[in-house]
Amino acid sequence: MTISLYDASVPVYTQMLGALDKVLGKAEAWAEARKIDGKVLAQARLFPDMLPLVSQVRIACDAARAGTARLAGIDFPKYEDNEQTLAELRQRIAGTLAFIEQVPRESIAGQEQRDITIPLRERKLEMKGQAFLLHWSLPNFFFHVTTAYDILRHNGLEVGKADFLGHA
Amino acid sequence: MTISLYDASVPVYTQMLGALDKVLGKAEAWAEARKIDGKVLAQARLFPDMLPLVSQVRIACDAARAGTARLAGIDFPKYEDNEQTLAELRQRIAGTLAFIEQVPRESIAGQEQRDITIPLRERKLEMKGQAFLLHWSLPNFFFHVTTAYDILRHNGLEVGKADFLGHA
Repeated sequence: MTISLYDASVPVYTQMLGALDKVLGKAEAWAEARKIDGKVLAQARLFPDMLPLVSQVRIACDAARAGTARLAGIDFPKYEDNEQTLAELRQRIAGTLAFIEQVPRESIAGQEQRDITIPLRERKLEMKGQAFLLHWSLPNFFFHVTTAYDILRHNGLEVGKADFLGHA
Repeated sequence: MTISLYDASVPVYTQMLGALDKVLGKAEAWAEARKIDGKVLAQARLFPDMLPLVSQVRIACDAARAGTARLAGIDFPKYEDNEQTLAELRQRIAGTLAFIEQVPRESIAGQEQRDITIPLRERKLEMKGQAFLLHWSLPNFFFHVTTAYDILRHNGLEVGKADFLGHA
């Protein structure tokens, strides 16, 4: 037995984005009850030179979308990055889930050796599909999903590990 | 082509724990230069009911150690959880890396259908090896690695995404 590249990618992104959506839903209700402006919460950061919640959620979505598309060798639409509210961030997650869930399993399974190029600011990274997923895409994805959660916890939202994992 | 369960587990834990060790090394040097007591930094939290840095690093190690051992079907030593300093946390990471790196590839590869039982406080979770790794162990592992990093960033340590990924 071995693992399909598909199973190691899309279902993991799906689990964590679904969980993040529910956490943001709890944040919306909590902010409303506490009369906290959701737009203020969306701009919360852990440190002045770290990205705010709104960016953490956007980039988590981008990591899942770009990861899925690169593994499948297909183009992916660029988002406008204009979300300001928690509701808009949840819409971005919904759009991301809709995109990654319609990519056929067969277009990712077996692509472990696909050449993938990641454009960075000053250089390009070249790696094979398997290394891209395990050592680049998933670590980046989990970083932003976790940091979004950590920002909300730091601001007092009452959620726990089960929420993070999507088991709540 | 498919992915080996080994490649999806041990090398991922190794990458991220190696990166976390280097980040903690930078934190040690920084704390010393700023005359910050490393034991105080080790007790830093993002919120009063979240676990401190020392626990985040301990649990990240445990997730890697228990994940590797469970996939391989072997016992794993229980740690004493008595680390107080950043140097002691780095020793725990070193011990964890030594443990997971001596587990033979052959004892994990092919174990996707192994029955794995996770004892929780009030119940047991039963799952197969592949689901355990992708939907339980890695999400938990990345949560604690990221939160350790986020605590240090929140306290002012100057590190970036390349440090988190181990590319610095």
